[in-house]
Amino acid sequence: MNTTSSPPQSGMESSTRTGADLLCETLLSQGIDHCFANPGTSEMHFVAALDRQPGMRCILGLSEGVVTGAADGYARMADKPACTLLHTGPGLANGLANLHNARRAFTPMVNIVGDHASLHAAFDAPLASDIEGLAWPMSHWVGRSSSPDSLGELAAEAVQQARTAPGRIATLILPADHAWSSTDTAAPPARGKPQPIAPQDSALAAAAQALQQPGALLLIAGAALREEGLKLAARISAHTGAKLLTQQANARVERGLGRVAIDRVPYVVDQALAKLKGTRRLVLVGAKAPVGFFAYPGKPSSMLPPDCEVITAAAPDEDLLAALHELAARVGAAADAHLPLLAQRADQKQALPLPSGALTAAAVAQSVVVQMPEQAVICDEMVSSGREFFPMSWYAAPHDYLQITGGAIGIGIPLATGAAIAAPGRKVINLQADGSAMYTLQALWTQARERLDVVTVIFSNRRYAILHGEYASVGAGAPGANAQRLFDIQDPALDWTLLARGMGVAAERADSAERFNDLLAAALQQRGPFLIEAVI
Amino acid sequence: MNTTSSPPQSGMESSTRTGADLLCETLLSQGIDHCFANPGTSEMHFVAALDRQPGMRCILGLSEGVVTGAADGYARMADKPACTLLHTGPGLANGLANLHNARRAFTPMVNIVGDHASLHAAFDAPLASDIEGLAWPMSHWVGRSSSPDSLGELAAEAVQQARTAPGRIATLILPADHAWSSTDTAAPPARGKPQPIAPQDSALAAAAQALQQPGALLLIAGAALREEGLKLAARISAHTGAKLLTQQANARVERGLGRVAIDRVPYVVDQALAKLKGTRRLVLVGAKAPVGFFAYPGKPSSMLPPDCEVITAAAPDEDLLAALHELAARVGAAADAHLPLLAQRADQKQALPLPSGALTAAAVAQSVVVQMPEQAVICDEMVSSGREFFPMSWYAAPHDYLQITGGAIGIGIPLATGAAIAAPGRKVINLQADGSAMYTLQALWTQARERLDVVTVIFSNRRYAILHGEYASVGAGAPGANAQRLFDIQDPALDWTLLARGMGVAAERADSAERFNDLLAAALQQRGPFLIEAVI
Repeated sequence: MNTTSSPPQSGMESSTRTGADLLCETLLSQGIDHCFANPGTSEMHFVAALDRQPGMRCILGLSEGVVTGAADGYARMADKPACTLLHTGPGLANGLANLHNARRAFTPMVNIVGDHASLHAAFDAPLASDIEGLAWPMSHWVGRSSSPDSLGELAAEAVQQARTAPGRIATLILPADHAWSSTDTAAPPARGKPQPIAPQDSALAAAAQALQQPGALLLIAGAALREEGLKLAARISAHTGAKLLTQQANARVERGLGRVAIDRVPYVVDQALAKLKGTRRLVLVGAKAPVGFFAYPGKPSSMLPPDCEVITAAAPDEDLLAALHELAARVGAAADAHLPLLAQRADQKQALPLPSGALTAAAVAQSVVVQMPEQAVICDEMVSSGREFFPMSWYAAPHDYLQITGGAIGIGIPLATGAAIAAPGRKVINLQADGSAMYTLQALWTQARERLDVVTVIFSNRRYAILHGEYASVGAGAPGANAQRLFDIQDPALDWTLLARGMGVAAERADSAERFNDLLAAALQQRGPFLIEAVI
Repeated sequence: MNTTSSPPQSGMESSTRTGADLLCETLLSQGIDHCFANPGTSEMHFVAALDRQPGMRCILGLSEGVVTGAADGYARMADKPACTLLHTGPGLANGLANLHNARRAFTPMVNIVGDHASLHAAFDAPLASDIEGLAWPMSHWVGRSSSPDSLGELAAEAVQQARTAPGRIATLILPADHAWSSTDTAAPPARGKPQPIAPQDSALAAAAQALQQPGALLLIAGAALREEGLKLAARISAHTGAKLLTQQANARVERGLGRVAIDRVPYVVDQALAKLKGTRRLVLVGAKAPVGFFAYPGKPSSMLPPDCEVITAAAPDEDLLAALHELAARVGAAADAHLPLLAQRADQKQALPLPSGALTAAAVAQSVVVQMPEQAVICDEMVSSGREFFPMSWYAAPHDYLQITGGAIGIGIPLATGAAIAAPGRKVINLQADGSAMYTLQALWTQARERLDVVTVIFSNRRYAILHGEYASVGAGAPGANAQRLFDIQDPALDWTLLARGMGVAAERADSAERFNDLLAAALQQRGPFLIEAVI
């Protein structure tokens, strides 16, 4: 949509019902009652409207990467969108990296981006920029109000877009004068949640046939990674002999004892190629055929064997549970079939002790796996430190597992913040690489402000450890002086206990496994945010 | 430019000269020898090339807002561009807000944005995004290499674009395979710096005539705000009786005793309208006709009287000093004319004592004005706290004054970081609002890493104070519960001494004027970064 000018409006009394009020009422009527925000002057009337809506919970983030990352974490756990409030083009720009992650996670989200009053646009004021141009690369839908009256239908459409399966980023641009001008237009009634597209019979038939042939692999993602979908997929796998995997990165997986211990495609190219070797028929349910996270000289982009056939049983925007039910029926997997993937791992729970001795990334992972409470929410932005955690977490108490999905670092602390707001009463544990943590450390303040029950574990290796590995992987040899200066974040070392306390979050440092075990036990026992700097 | 695919390349030995080497050699041959960076995997070969160029100084920023803001500060003080190194679309996105400020400051800058290998693009890997789409809103020029061999001419063109008056943002997208593939193409020879366009005779004639008529105002910006331009403008003003002003926000002004005490257009609309009342002829030299920073209900967007004539003597991309010389000659302002704006203020230096008693924003400003050393560099991101500083700094020792230019908060700490790198031996004093400081506090770490001589003064009012004012200005009444939660950043209060020390920067807190005076004196005496939290 394009800007359309509207006649200048005079100042409004605070008792006047404005376009901003219509927008807020519509968000609430469509089921959005959380607003993650960092407003500016052009959003003051929207803030005034929020003031008149006690049913809308407003959460301040001290930078926009916090705002969009928290809205992502909220939606992954609430299974419905939050809205964000962002200040003009630069405010949106600061939030784009975590919108990129949310887009890759298929997270539903509605961004409200304030803009200058429509008649002010011609004056190219200092904050003016091409908001649509900034929004489109990270949005599935972008709209701009044409008048105050238009805000009801436009906001309802934005929410419907966000809720369209599997989840979309909708960005609504709000000129200040449309927010501040009066309107009598009523908020539209609640619209039903859009239903996912039904899977195609021909696709299911082809998939069912492929699953029963040699070299079949069932790759699932999205809604299929909740308990019901995982069980269906495990039954299909057990019955047909097809392998079962999920993608390298997923928005949310239900994991732990008594659930299906699904494995994933490895990040490292050679490991992924080895894992997928021999695959002749790849059946996708909500997943994408595996590709290298990056390209490397002399290595392929696709992780599949060259002769592998790819069969899409259900695309991400289709009804994945329906597809799995149908596939299970078509391959003859009985409802009560034995689930080896589930039982096999549960037996080994007793084998995993608390770690001792030197603190390593693996020791941290092991301590978390052993100690995490039932129904914990794990947020994983461990990057290179975290490759030990996922296989071990088969043995953990039942939990939800949330990952960085788009590779834009700086999501972990915000993601945990939003997840904790959506899931009160559940312990959120954020496993967090130090380099990535620095991108959006401001989210710790929001955790303190909102008294959120989050334990942040910083893997403090004082380097972008992944870049040391990647430098070698691309064939660049040993890092020299300039490379070292760009890869290492010591000199000075970051003191995460001071950084956390500076934002009101209690924090301690661990440099042995025993100390880490004790600190984690204490942190899990108390309520409210706590940070552990694990020096590894 | 569009992506063009190139044949796949095998892995290179580290001794092979690559496209990345050609790019680095070209940057150096065109005079760029500072690289502000936060690289990722797709930039590893560029990093390897940097390793082979000891003449290129690499400075790591722990988030991309630090990287672009520091490159801006560097260029403002070095009068030449630095390059940045950013990791794919999300890395660029994180740097866009400070690119917006740099664009508004007409800062020359070359951004190198790494992208996936060109053949990997079709696979839509997790980090893939529309980099061109993200770059254009904040760039004057965007290019993408078509082959390894193309990188020499393309980089030379990017540097020329950046150096084109008054300064441009050039963004060069570098697919990983063009960086890693071999090339024999030589780096192009140094190109001369592009000269600004000569001012038009007819424009100068009209301007000279207008300046000599009643109600004339000479509004200058850009290169006209260095000592020579200011003196010329002051002569013209003294001779013709035309008022002299500069814009509300400027990239760099040479100020202090013995220099022209130019005033600026106020930020607050009513004050700006009052200041410009009676202006009948506005003559622009590198400046833009004043507009409201924001629009407000019932208030105009232009700050000029409706009947005011606007005469552009020289546009920002023209030779502003030549224009002022020519205008001075045409109005008959003698080279040795009396400069009242200069002398008048110098006399009053003795009148300004050190502040005492309660610590206020004005007391902080006064202490800085009294104590700052000769040739200090002031970075101003005080936002609402800083309106007292500018008029007082007439009395300060000669210094350079750098401002936030585009309203995208989060520039101050990075700007000071880059300015300190460009101006070793000069004291950099960053006057910094707390809310804005939180956006890019990571830059303190770079100050510690690089042992930069920067004193950061945090105006710790524990709120987005400007929003309290703006909420009232837009007629929204008194903030309610939701608004208070979005405007105040207490509960918990940020502890800036802990945040700074957590990044290796020494820090202390002041809550009286006397304590602030003492801390500032000590900070100015020592070398290296120091932070003072001024609780106001």
